[in-house]
Amino acid sequence: MIQIAVLGYGTVGSGVVEVIDTNHASINKKAGEEINIKYVLDLRDFPGDKIQEKIVHDFNIILEDPEIKIVVEVMGGVEPAYTFTKRALLAGKSVCTSNKELVARHGAELLEIARERNLNYLFEASCGGGIPIIRPLNSSLTADEIDEITGILNGTTNYILTKMTEEGSSFEEVLKDAQEKGYAERNPEADVEGHDACRKIAILSSLALGRQVDYEDIYTEGITKITADDIKYAKEMGKTIKLLAFSRKVDDSFYAMVAPCLIGPTDPLYSVNGVFNAIFVHGNVLGDAMFYGSGAGKLPTASAVVSDVVDCAKHLHRSIMSFWSSHKLELTDISNSRRRFFVRVKGDPAADLARVRELFGDVEVVTVPGLDGEFGFKTGTISEAEYKEKAAELGTVINMIRMRRVKAGR
Amino acid sequence: MIQIAVLGYGTVGSGVVEVIDTNHASINKKAGEEINIKYVLDLRDFPGDKIQEKIVHDFNIILEDPEIKIVVEVMGGVEPAYTFTKRALLAGKSVCTSNKELVARHGAELLEIARERNLNYLFEASCGGGIPIIRPLNSSLTADEIDEITGILNGTTNYILTKMTEEGSSFEEVLKDAQEKGYAERNPEADVEGHDACRKIAILSSLALGRQVDYEDIYTEGITKITADDIKYAKEMGKTIKLLAFSRKVDDSFYAMVAPCLIGPTDPLYSVNGVFNAIFVHGNVLGDAMFYGSGAGKLPTASAVVSDVVDCAKHLHRSIMSFWSSHKLELTDISNSRRRFFVRVKGDPAADLARVRELFGDVEVVTVPGLDGEFGFKTGTISEAEYKEKAAELGTVINMIRMRRVKAGR
Repeated sequence: MIQIAVLGYGTVGSGVVEVIDTNHASINKKAGEEINIKYVLDLRDFPGDKIQEKIVHDFNIILEDPEIKIVVEVMGGVEPAYTFTKRALLAGKSVCTSNKELVARHGAELLEIARERNLNYLFEASCGGGIPIIRPLNSSLTADEIDEITGILNGTTNYILTKMTEEGSSFEEVLKDAQEKGYAERNPEADVEGHDACRKIAILSSLALGRQVDYEDIYTEGITKITADDIKYAKEMGKTIKLLAFSRKVDDSFYAMVAPCLIGPTDPLYSVNGVFNAIFVHGNVLGDAMFYGSGAGKLPTASAVVSDVVDCAKHLHRSIMSFWSSHKLELTDISNSRRRFFVRVKGDPAADLARVRELFGDVEVVTVPGLDGEFGFKTGTISEAEYKEKAAELGTVINMIRMRRVKAGR
Repeated sequence: MIQIAVLGYGTVGSGVVEVIDTNHASINKKAGEEINIKYVLDLRDFPGDKIQEKIVHDFNIILEDPEIKIVVEVMGGVEPAYTFTKRALLAGKSVCTSNKELVARHGAELLEIARERNLNYLFEASCGGGIPIIRPLNSSLTADEIDEITGILNGTTNYILTKMTEEGSSFEEVLKDAQEKGYAERNPEADVEGHDACRKIAILSSLALGRQVDYEDIYTEGITKITADDIKYAKEMGKTIKLLAFSRKVDDSFYAMVAPCLIGPTDPLYSVNGVFNAIFVHGNVLGDAMFYGSGAGKLPTASAVVSDVVDCAKHLHRSIMSFWSSHKLELTDISNSRRRFFVRVKGDPAADLARVRELFGDVEVVTVPGLDGEFGFKTGTISEAEYKEKAAELGTVINMIRMRRVKAGR
């Protein structure tokens, strides 16, 4: 029997308890031993709940119990999760987590501590909820050099954009509705400003590239500036707007960014709707691959955490994760990254297109019936710097949305 | 340095050589040791090719060389691949393969031989080409009980159906074009009759369920009866036709089948077009997940084979695959499986709908402008047996296509 402890009895923690309870027979078979939850650490008590007898309030009880081989950290946030994780690893216990903030900030160090001790620090649930992506990146895509990762990595923003597209509503209306339904938090900033997706693409990029990618270095835009009118233009073009988090190789360096982008129906990310997430990966020999599933939610996330517990149980004294060097990877500035831009400007094509063409060359014009006093256009492939300079010179830009670049010259 | 041998210098074999050559630095880093191809077994010689000096014609040279730790079997077909694989394993060498016929027929036995000797028999490339699916099923989806696997598992048929949909052409025309372009073989039977997809769903089901699923037991229909008119009806309904291979849990048993099915735009499999493949998996706690990528092709398939080589190199004396019992899983007859059916019948709705409704209840009628003397209808959810009986009684059926069932009561 392998004894484990769960740190935090919130949404994911209670999901972990439920998954281990529901599927105990098949989980034990796959782990090769019975997995038993001995402790649940929480500040609160849960009278009447069957885990109440396992509740402890003091982390030292877990740390000092030599029977505990695996610690499940599902508290979220950097502290005290960081201290607890480090102490658990130093005490010879493997750790599984769903904590993206912690992995993004201290992943390299914690992986190194685990590796030195033949332990594991696993974090499948930190990116893409239930979608298997960390393990495939670690042990399936090993024949390839990964030159692009592009993810729809945040369920809340994808739900909001999907609803705005389906219903024609404004960002504010849909956000309010999502908050009432529990799909968005009362303080939605981490989701809608793109910070959550940013941490996740930092983790995926660090793992794929083998070097620390600092999330503070990643250019990040959220979806708060996307309006119902933007969605009308997207529909007019047969496209949809998604919040994409991506890192791409250009020559011998990488850049990364998080921003709303227009994508077309032949893109495998096009039909990833609602709270679903997906991660698109391009390898130099594999070509395109995509991983799709529930990006959040109690049970899908718990499923990923428990798959890590099973892997820890199967490899109690053997480190199975690739680690990434804490030596930071310097991302290149996005200014040189190239793509097409969709731009909405004040004016009307008859009077103002000439000036646009003077600056941007032979653009494609897009108009939406009923939207007067403005029009849209798609630029050719230009750099971020060029766009910025020309847009400033034009002076009439209402909004700009990047167009996802696929295929050649990624 | 780890010495390996490649059996067969055909499409996949030459891809394996190319991938190991192209990405040698990153592959060696991930494997933890340099991987070197010492022999390539082929009946032919390849004068002028840089592997000519490695060519051997006698398998015993490989078998008797104690330096060879990993054998890559990419010959295809049951014999001599089966004999060679078995002898390699018995001689203490791990084996990686893309050979679906062999895995479907003798996988249980070969896995067991490998496991008893702390070796590996890995076959990521046998299903879905470059798509990581075997390894995720084996080591990621371990917290779940899998109750459905549905795959678009054959690139040739998906290419043909996609072209028929895009161009309105007949099966025969598109097949001829696909043969000219090399997307279909001169003898296309294994693909178009569904046998290839059938072997792959047998492998995926065996692995997910832990028991041998015999492909001979799987009800299999190909796409040869799908006509341009069927596609017109599909478009009229806003759906598309895909050759699906699936196994599903009903109560406590499983059934499996391969058949063309109608799927709608909210289904994640809907936009899997051309030579791409995808595997949809439903777990009891994870919910929906999907894996998408290149289902065939020299380099994607080789990428999967080489990822197996890396895993073998990292685990030279440790068995990492779950095995499945050679004790056969008895599939339940498909007669009791339930779904909606789309049926094309002779006649016209005004005169003949009453008789249809007498037999099938309150069906939905579908007509396509220009297709006279016939109409279509969608039944409610009924069993295969009920459909068969009523269709026989009706006596005017032109064609029937199953509708993919999602959500409740899988």
